[in-house]
Amino acid sequence: MTETGFDGARELAADTGGGRPEARREPGDLRRVGANPDHWYPLARSRSVRPGRVLPAVFAGERLALFRGRSGAVYALEDRCAHRQVPLSMGVVEGETLRCCYHAWAYRGDGRISQIPYLSRGDGRPPRGVRGYPVREAYGLVFVFPGDPEKAAVTELPDLPAFGAPAYRTMTFSRTVRCHYSFMHENLLDMNHQFLHRGVVGRIRPELLGYTTGPRSVEARYLFTHSGGKRNRGASLLSAGDIRGSDSADLLTIRTEYPYQTLDLVQEGAERPAFRLWAAYVPEDAEQRRCHAYGLLMIEKPRIPGALHLAWPLIRRFTERVFAEDRMAVEAEQRAWDEQGEDRNHEVFPLILDVREVLRANGVPLRPPAAAPGCGQVQ
Amino acid sequence: MTETGFDGARELAADTGGGRPEARREPGDLRRVGANPDHWYPLARSRSVRPGRVLPAVFAGERLALFRGRSGAVYALEDRCAHRQVPLSMGVVEGETLRCCYHAWAYRGDGRISQIPYLSRGDGRPPRGVRGYPVREAYGLVFVFPGDPEKAAVTELPDLPAFGAPAYRTMTFSRTVRCHYSFMHENLLDMNHQFLHRGVVGRIRPELLGYTTGPRSVEARYLFTHSGGKRNRGASLLSAGDIRGSDSADLLTIRTEYPYQTLDLVQEGAERPAFRLWAAYVPEDAEQRRCHAYGLLMIEKPRIPGALHLAWPLIRRFTERVFAEDRMAVEAEQRAWDEQGEDRNHEVFPLILDVREVLRANGVPLRPPAAAPGCGQVQ
Amino acid sequence: MTETGFDGARELAADTGGGRPEARREPGDLRRVGANPDHWYPLARSRSVRPGRVLPAVFAGERLALFRGRSGAVYALEDRCAHRQVPLSMGVVEGETLRCCYHAWAYRGDGRISQIPYLSRGDGRPPRGVRGYPVREAYGLVFVFPGDPEKAAVTELPDLPAFGAPAYRTMTFSRTVRCHYSFMHENLLDMNHQFLHRGVVGRIRPELLGYTTGPRSVEARYLFTHSGGKRNRGASLLSAGDIRGSDSADLLTIRTEYPYQTLDLVQEGAERPAFRLWAAYVPEDAEQRRCHAYGLLMIEKPRIPGALHLAWPLIRRFTERVFAEDRMAVEAEQRAWDEQGEDRNHEVFPLILDVREVLRANGVPLRPPAAAPGCGQVQ
Repeated sequence: MTETGFDGARELAADTGGGRPEARREPGDLRRVGANPDHWYPLARSRSVRPGRVLPAVFAGERLALFRGRSGAVYALEDRCAHRQVPLSMGVVEGETLRCCYHAWAYRGDGRISQIPYLSRGDGRPPRGVRGYPVREAYGLVFVFPGDPEKAAVTELPDLPAFGAPAYRTMTFSRTVRCHYSFMHENLLDMNHQFLHRGVVGRIRPELLGYTTGPRSVEARYLFTHSGGKRNRGASLLSAGDIRGSDSADLLTIRTEYPYQTLDLVQEGAERPAFRLWAAYVPEDAEQRRCHAYGLLMIEKPRIPGALHLAWPLIRRFTERVFAEDRMAVEAEQRAWDEQGEDRNHEVFPLILDVREVLRANGVPLRPPAAAPGCGQVQ
Repeated sequence: MTETGFDGARELAADTGGGRPEARREPGDLRRVGANPDHWYPLARSRSVRPGRVLPAVFAGERLALFRGRSGAVYALEDRCAHRQVPLSMGVVEGETLRCCYHAWAYRGDGRISQIPYLSRGDGRPPRGVRGYPVREAYGLVFVFPGDPEKAAVTELPDLPAFGAPAYRTMTFSRTVRCHYSFMHENLLDMNHQFLHRGVVGRIRPELLGYTTGPRSVEARYLFTHSGGKRNRGASLLSAGDIRGSDSADLLTIRTEYPYQTLDLVQEGAERPAFRLWAAYVPEDAEQRRCHAYGLLMIEKPRIPGALHLAWPLIRRFTERVFAEDRMAVEAEQRAWDEQGEDRNHEVFPLILDVREVLRANGVPLRPPAAAPGCGQVQ
Repeated sequence: MTETGFDGARELAADTGGGRPEARREPGDLRRVGANPDHWYPLARSRSVRPGRVLPAVFAGERLALFRGRSGAVYALEDRCAHRQVPLSMGVVEGETLRCCYHAWAYRGDGRISQIPYLSRGDGRPPRGVRGYPVREAYGLVFVFPGDPEKAAVTELPDLPAFGAPAYRTMTFSRTVRCHYSFMHENLLDMNHQFLHRGVVGRIRPELLGYTTGPRSVEARYLFTHSGGKRNRGASLLSAGDIRGSDSADLLTIRTEYPYQTLDLVQEGAERPAFRLWAAYVPEDAEQRRCHAYGLLMIEKPRIPGALHLAWPLIRRFTERVFAEDRMAVEAEQRAWDEQGEDRNHEVFPLILDVREVLRANGVPLRPPAAAPGCGQVQ
């Protein structure tokens, strides 16, 4: 792990034969790197998987059926019946089993077939079942482990101490964004894009204080100074500036810790973050040109009881708008990539070059697309 | 032709080296087998081809223009003008000819050009015309012979004695279903899918009494016993059960006789079928992933005059709902095939293995898709 | 240049080994010939590029950002930021520069970067800028030169003396048509398609008086006689016929002068045209299966002051309807080409064979489509 001040970063950027040559090599196209499945990924909000119900979900083109049994446990199965590949998410939950809607084959939570109602001895040999996935619930989300199931037990869920802590209250986000997940990481880490949000945050002068790169992480520290322009009320509620005068500033720490991302904002002079954001970007399609962004925004409760409750809608409106602007930009990036058929980014900001390398080094090759039997029809 | 009871079927299923080895071999992908064009296929309802009007139709990606001349006769032409390939179905009927809307070239019912209004002697040599297809009208449908026209004269239309018989009245169905026609045959023949219709038919216990396989046909006989659950009133009108008590049963005979399919239902103790269904599944697109289902449901008139008239809307609502459920399932099957790029069915029911072989043996290779000059634009 | 009467045309059509063999050879598929970029093409109406605003435009799959600076000058840039390829048309005009909406990189009107706000000395070497295109405004349109910029200075804009002349008033058209531009040229030059417009113009008998073919042009002269049928009032306002009795006629001169097209209509006995149409068809997509038609219809003012003002909505409605009918036909032609994957036109009209050759000889090979990384997603 290397600690680098901004001056050091400059040197690094110039020094292409130096200590971290890989980070400058940029081999292959980042937008063709798949998300590593050997991590826990949120695939649904817990409240969306109601008792006795089934919900379709997806990870990088793999369809899953999530269902909650009578016991309250959530299960994740491959979303195609072993018989005729009809989605099990169209099926019916019975106790702790899931029954296909078509010929009523029944599956246990681990994917094994428990019953084929009409099968006689001597009929064709039935299949054993479908794939089952490890599942865990935490932070109001259903996490699934899409990779090697043996690694699930030794892989940690993200640790979010602020979630549920008395001093914080959490706002949850869940949105599909039509871009490769890497654009999301670059968007959040490169705070030089405040021009995009000028209509809501006014004029922000971001100053990079330094950044740290590790084999699985990049962490950047910025000082944000508000230098004029109208500011949205929601923005004021989440940062310093207005309250403490125009000279006051916010310290932002943004971190990609593969495959997640966090952002902590500490107002000048404060002891703990005014808010902490945790985010995961889950690829939806096999080509990973679309991802689902899950966000947990843990907001510090103010001294005055009830004040956060009143401010809640304003904060949500502000964050929704910022998110909509970011989405507009990253989806435009993806469309440009689609048109050009390759990544032609000309990146000049050293820490972004680093996070690109982290995403590349920790990702996996994209599976070749299924032998689509014809264009246009397979949507 | 082999008569096989259910016990025999079991043996057959186990005996993979036996008398009908082809049926077990499953060579090639059934969903890539084209419908054999050397049969009569319904391409429209008669009433949709009004006198002096033209209607576009399609068989497996071949576009046709159907038109009815002043004489009342219906003609079927290739749906592109020989000049600049504008659809003739956009044209105008004049007597027994069809005139293209663009430069007014006129065609006879057999496809030959009868006039090019502006052509001078010495201008480029005009083409002879476009393809004409054999046409016959029967049962309120326009049947077209898309294959070798010489075979049309020696190929029979389906024989439906109940259609127009005094004891029956016919309900006609016409629907596009987004799946390969083979899924439709399998759906109707495999009566173990009553779970799909549990909301309308209650709990049905289907028992296979036996089945017969021939080179062009599979016929299955089931006994249906109603074993509880609420039943739709339309369902009651078409079967036994409620009327004669819960012990009574229906005998269903379902038959694929290439390329058509029939279903007869005889209530316990009745002399003739309570209803007879005839169906044809006509591929629409060149890849045959979409078909148009035409159905003629011939329903026995009850003793009481006018009773069927009153029951008609209930019966239609019931059949529409059953059909909608079947469509949901077979379209889900097609989507799974599209995603996987191949048939991964794991069939365990012997007679379904047989009908797959019948469809394969009587079908034709799919034409390779036209050299689409680019994806995405050719819809 | 060869002057050919209609009789001569007949000979030419018969003489396939004669003086203009290329014109009969028809090598390659006309619908795969690209529009030659070394001409001035209208890409927007002037009034759509408002001061201080930016507008996306396109030529044959190349995206452009048009913007008007504070000086009133219009600039045309490649529509992707050199940094991360976000469209510059999403950006903000500042004086004579255009700033990208995302990280606020600023560009001059010639495409060179004028500022990267956050770049420190030593950061990665920034790119020089993006491509800038020559621009001229005339006739209420913004013309761009998409080809070799060195040729722009020596390439003339079209010369339209009637535009702005006191005797004429101009109606402007701007429409996307889903077809290759060549279908538009053939549509206007082949006046034998009046059957298509029978509902608005009645029965027209077009007589070809003669035509002239040059290396870059085809000009056809027709006599139009109205021979019955109801005629739209807008049609009457633009031609003879009704006013001067049914024997009177119109002389139409239609000319493809690569890449533009004109149509002049002179009423029998008149000195100057009742109207003059100038049109350009600008390919939109890279495969050039869609074009944008810009039309300037310069209509002679009648003696009575204010009469044209009153007739204006009628004329617009008439021309819109004629255009809609033409669009229906040419888009049907394109769909047929898409389905068949090639041009199967069987053309019999000699001057159309000539204009096909002119378009082929003056066009350029289509660029191969960008290595689209997958079908279905790149729309």
